[in-house]
Amino acid sequence: MMMSPDTSPVRASARALDELRPLSIETGYTRYAEGSVLIRAGGTHVLCNASVLDKVPPFLKGRGQGWVTAEYGMLPRATHTRGDREAARGKQSGRTQEIQRLIGRSLRAVFDLQALGERTLHLDCDVLQADGGTRCASITGAWVAAALAVRGLLDGGAIAADPIRDSVAAVSVGLVGGVPMLDLDYGEDSGCDADVNVVMTGAGGYVEVQGTAEGLAFERATLDRLLDLARDGIARLASLQREALQRPA
Amino acid sequence: MMMSPDTSPVRASARALDELRPLSIETGYTRYAEGSVLIRAGGTHVLCNASVLDKVPPFLKGRGQGWVTAEYGMLPRATHTRGDREAARGKQSGRTQEIQRLIGRSLRAVFDLQALGERTLHLDCDVLQADGGTRCASITGAWVAAALAVRGLLDGGAIAADPIRDSVAAVSVGLVGGVPMLDLDYGEDSGCDADVNVVMTGAGGYVEVQGTAEGLAFERATLDRLLDLARDGIARLASLQREALQRPA
Amino acid sequence: MMMSPDTSPVRASARALDELRPLSIETGYTRYAEGSVLIRAGGTHVLCNASVLDKVPPFLKGRGQGWVTAEYGMLPRATHTRGDREAARGKQSGRTQEIQRLIGRSLRAVFDLQALGERTLHLDCDVLQADGGTRCASITGAWVAAALAVRGLLDGGAIAADPIRDSVAAVSVGLVGGVPMLDLDYGEDSGCDADVNVVMTGAGGYVEVQGTAEGLAFERATLDRLLDLARDGIARLASLQREALQRPA
Amino acid sequence: MMMSPDTSPVRASARALDELRPLSIETGYTRYAEGSVLIRAGGTHVLCNASVLDKVPPFLKGRGQGWVTAEYGMLPRATHTRGDREAARGKQSGRTQEIQRLIGRSLRAVFDLQALGERTLHLDCDVLQADGGTRCASITGAWVAAALAVRGLLDGGAIAADPIRDSVAAVSVGLVGGVPMLDLDYGEDSGCDADVNVVMTGAGGYVEVQGTAEGLAFERATLDRLLDLARDGIARLASLQREALQRPA
Amino acid sequence: MMMSPDTSPVRASARALDELRPLSIETGYTRYAEGSVLIRAGGTHVLCNASVLDKVPPFLKGRGQGWVTAEYGMLPRATHTRGDREAARGKQSGRTQEIQRLIGRSLRAVFDLQALGERTLHLDCDVLQADGGTRCASITGAWVAAALAVRGLLDGGAIAADPIRDSVAAVSVGLVGGVPMLDLDYGEDSGCDADVNVVMTGAGGYVEVQGTAEGLAFERATLDRLLDLARDGIARLASLQREALQRPA
Amino acid sequence: MMMSPDTSPVRASARALDELRPLSIETGYTRYAEGSVLIRAGGTHVLCNASVLDKVPPFLKGRGQGWVTAEYGMLPRATHTRGDREAARGKQSGRTQEIQRLIGRSLRAVFDLQALGERTLHLDCDVLQADGGTRCASITGAWVAAALAVRGLLDGGAIAADPIRDSVAAVSVGLVGGVPMLDLDYGEDSGCDADVNVVMTGAGGYVEVQGTAEGLAFERATLDRLLDLARDGIARLASLQREALQRPA
Repeated sequence: MMMSPDTSPVRASARALDELRPLSIETGYTRYAEGSVLIRAGGTHVLCNASVLDKVPPFLKGRGQGWVTAEYGMLPRATHTRGDREAARGKQSGRTQEIQRLIGRSLRAVFDLQALGERTLHLDCDVLQADGGTRCASITGAWVAAALAVRGLLDGGAIAADPIRDSVAAVSVGLVGGVPMLDLDYGEDSGCDADVNVVMTGAGGYVEVQGTAEGLAFERATLDRLLDLARDGIARLASLQREALQRPA
Repeated sequence: MMMSPDTSPVRASARALDELRPLSIETGYTRYAEGSVLIRAGGTHVLCNASVLDKVPPFLKGRGQGWVTAEYGMLPRATHTRGDREAARGKQSGRTQEIQRLIGRSLRAVFDLQALGERTLHLDCDVLQADGGTRCASITGAWVAAALAVRGLLDGGAIAADPIRDSVAAVSVGLVGGVPMLDLDYGEDSGCDADVNVVMTGAGGYVEVQGTAEGLAFERATLDRLLDLARDGIARLASLQREALQRPA
Repeated sequence: MMMSPDTSPVRASARALDELRPLSIETGYTRYAEGSVLIRAGGTHVLCNASVLDKVPPFLKGRGQGWVTAEYGMLPRATHTRGDREAARGKQSGRTQEIQRLIGRSLRAVFDLQALGERTLHLDCDVLQADGGTRCASITGAWVAAALAVRGLLDGGAIAADPIRDSVAAVSVGLVGGVPMLDLDYGEDSGCDADVNVVMTGAGGYVEVQGTAEGLAFERATLDRLLDLARDGIARLASLQREALQRPA
Repeated sequence: MMMSPDTSPVRASARALDELRPLSIETGYTRYAEGSVLIRAGGTHVLCNASVLDKVPPFLKGRGQGWVTAEYGMLPRATHTRGDREAARGKQSGRTQEIQRLIGRSLRAVFDLQALGERTLHLDCDVLQADGGTRCASITGAWVAAALAVRGLLDGGAIAADPIRDSVAAVSVGLVGGVPMLDLDYGEDSGCDADVNVVMTGAGGYVEVQGTAEGLAFERATLDRLLDLARDGIARLASLQREALQRPA
Repeated sequence: MMMSPDTSPVRASARALDELRPLSIETGYTRYAEGSVLIRAGGTHVLCNASVLDKVPPFLKGRGQGWVTAEYGMLPRATHTRGDREAARGKQSGRTQEIQRLIGRSLRAVFDLQALGERTLHLDCDVLQADGGTRCASITGAWVAAALAVRGLLDGGAIAADPIRDSVAAVSVGLVGGVPMLDLDYGEDSGCDADVNVVMTGAGGYVEVQGTAEGLAFERATLDRLLDLARDGIARLASLQREALQRPA
Repeated sequence: MMMSPDTSPVRASARALDELRPLSIETGYTRYAEGSVLIRAGGTHVLCNASVLDKVPPFLKGRGQGWVTAEYGMLPRATHTRGDREAARGKQSGRTQEIQRLIGRSLRAVFDLQALGERTLHLDCDVLQADGGTRCASITGAWVAAALAVRGLLDGGAIAADPIRDSVAAVSVGLVGGVPMLDLDYGEDSGCDADVNVVMTGAGGYVEVQGTAEGLAFERATLDRLLDLARDGIARLASLQREALQRPA
């Protein structure tokens, strides 16, 4: 996938600096969810299930609109060393909550909640294997799962108009050893100087930009270059999302 | 797999009464765990990861022996309707704790904890899709994951002697509409009169027998017939476990 | 109570192998519960209180039937060494939850929940002193407490027909030093090779069979012998339960 | 016990205004605790167990002194209507914590923690049946349980000198319908205008005075009268505590 | 403030034994609360906010009366050494719960809950800086915040009659080095022999008296002297509360 | 402060689009913290306390370096309507955790943790009153508190070299009604189309950029304009931080 001529000596994976990891989006991965997707971005594998629930949170009751929300989890041994099971420890970490809030906001940004009707689209993103970029893969996969669930609602006549206004996808970009690059894997991410998670619509609008200096603060020019890389990466992700939806389930 | 001549009209799946569901054991499913297995028993899919941890629980410190333990989880949308995420709710249900205690006890029954040395073998069993019998599939898969992790310890010279004395596997049997049958799926399990989860070693010894009357109390003769079915089913499971370990990873 | 001619040299208590511990069932032990029983099985003392609550769990609302459920607890110093207070630690252990689920299932197995009407019978089993077999004593005592509470409902005209179809009682059996024996005390239980908790109705049907190999796996013949012992023990328990109910309160 | 000539028409129980409820202190109630007492003050029954633990809290480590602490609980059906089980709800109520802190402080007031040595005396006070005054009965009973545990330490040679400087006991007094009275039961307590829990040493010194206006604020003269009643009641309690310790176990 | 001629050599602060710490009550400290007060008693600073909520606790629903309740917190670095943040630790300490229950009871003692109507007055007392006596300052300040909130309800016509029957205030008194003194600061409190927290109405009635022997038990005469000191101190506090309410906001 | 000629008709506060809210930084606000600051940005008031703790988190033990971390809280009635007290509810919200993680990362970005030595600088940011931008005010104030604490360490000789490499401050910028503006208050923030929280060093490097589309996705040009506004605003904040440190405490 995506063979780039200027293969970079910089990256352990021999990817070009502006090259996404091999991405696959497997639809219908589990049987019961209204939309189910296993997204694999290189070694990062996330199971994204969309559930249609006939209820809305209390603050929306009786207002004739729907809600889109997300929960995120990482299996204890998705990573190099085993992490605590959050259910056993009795609470979700700050990181988990931060990520699931981000996924929910990102999805809502492309939904017409009125058109969804008084129901909740609940996205569960569970990381089976983690090699960096799990929040971005979750958003990209969750949108496909959501689109599948919405297709079911449309096909079944539960809603008349498509509540999805655009696609949404996410990618991380970062400065590694002073070099800007696209779609960091775990090795790149853990040693980077700065990384930015970018969430954009299919039409190229920004939904979220979350940039963090890991070591020293970064310059405006660096940010500009990283945003360029992200924009091009997300255009390719949006195209792969569309392809996944066009394949027979 | 396992075509039985006397295919039963009783079962929705057209399986014979003494027929296991199609079973596959995929080793090396994830990349980082010391042993990783995706076990599929019909529509029940469980990811079993074995982690080797260089520590033991406090009550075993300095006693020169190891420990084997397990945790169990079900992804929120593994089932027909979405269940609460235990990490979000802040605690594991009684059912979850009961199952993970059972998995741990079952594995320990075939381990020589002295030979394991002062380390913990931690089994994580996460249900990706649930169609009945998740605790049994977890035990059967977890043993294979544990065996893979132990093989790594032996190959790497960390331990000298194999701490695994025998295989262990589990299956459910039940009385459905008055008919004893093997390896219940969700539809059979939710309507059964009695079900028994049986955990046995490869040599045919009992590790656990957990029988429950769902409706009326059951007779000794019923229990005997169910235990017969379980014994034969587990013999086949033990054979499939061995095959899985002989395949190249 | 129950002097057996073949008094065994095997047991520290000089009990015969098929002999129950001295059992007493004191009704009316506390004043406010609709049914209150202090059951003493040797050194194991459990206070079983039955409360009648005019509500049912959410999943049963408006379905015109009742519910029977149980909670279990052990006072911190019921045992040889003080255990943590679960209320102070902030959660019930897996063991506690497993036991209270077992008690609830066992009681429900002999109840006609329709005949109970839309109310809950809540059993609280609190162990004041523990010398093995607390879950079995809890079930045996809880049934008597439940029967007392139901008698009150019948006497008061709250229900017309007795919702209790049969009695239910439980006993542990085990293999100690290779010898099958009935009704293990703590010393026997902690050193046994296998133990089975058996829950049966007064009519002799099985409600639960929970057998566990503590050391090596056990044979089918062992299981058969243990089930024989349990059947006879439970017949005696059922008779003692009936006597307790016939005594003036 | 305590027949008073001026039997009062005011009290439902026909007790005199300055009369304690019938009090019994049964020692050796459970088998394993180093000191075990069932105290019954009228319909209030509290099991007080004293455990000797060979450790001290972190803030006392290595300081060559001991600690005395308490935990309190009420069985769910100790009262007229069933209360939540704190272990199931996942936390102790504010009331529970307030009471157990009070019991601990009261006991420590009569202990020489240096003489106790580097160990903890842990008092568990569990209310089996509640008819008012459970915190006072807990203190009075806990002191006897503590004294029994200390006697064991002295008899066994673990400590050389008695760390108990005096006895401690508690009683409630209150203004009911404008009339000051001693040792309120639940009916009196729930309708009173003011109640005061008083904790005093055998020598008559104050350890705690906790007075609360339930309706209108009360006068200094009322407080004085209530403190007089409490002083006399506690003198009788102290005498009953001494008697309990002199009985053969 | 309050220059006393007989300045005491006993107190580090050179205060007279019967002298309050300099007290200021700043109303309108925050913008949104219906009543907001920053009370400073020497180095103890507590922000007391009163919120009017249009709901009552479940046990009062539909009974046409209101409720007054309080919560208390201490900022982690209000004290000499940083304490845990209770929200991060996941529970309120026993001390916190004891204090907030005391504040709530104290305020309710002077409220006509019928006249308040079916609404809740919720007092939040948050200690910004702690130099002893935080519970007393909380009560004294909370009453002023409550009075401001009630004034708003009266001015806005939400209620017709003033539900506040009297003022309420609190002070600590104690025996330090054998000397009775008023309004202990942290240094005095941590070394005292006995301390009593006294809550009284403006009319001089007792609402709460909470006396504790820190070292040896104390005599009745000591208690009497401490109650005298408290009475006079509270009279001055009541006067300062009235002044604060008369100042323009 | 900061009178801008082009006062905007767009803003309710009549501020210019590129104008900060009146900002005050009061040092020494509480007595015990090693650094204490009350920062007021318009109606947003945050108490920032820096504590020096002689320990580091477990993952840093024995590595000769320090740590900087933060906790954030909002008093229940800091806002228009009362929010739950997180300590009472038993957990910190996802929003709280997200903010405190951001504050900690932002501070660490300008610290040389080696130079700090094996100790922790713990920042507590507690919002007394909230009118938008509380996370930004927390970062800006926390840096001043941290600098005061570090000054104490330097003055006392605990460390030889200043571990602070630069200042750090934060501001929010947003698109309100299509108009980019600086330092949103609550009214502006709750109705904005997009907002970006920007954290920058005194030297003008980016530490964090967190942009979120609240309604429609935003354009790159919008992001650029917002980043320009933030850069200028933060330059002014950095100057105010320096001034605050130069004032006598």
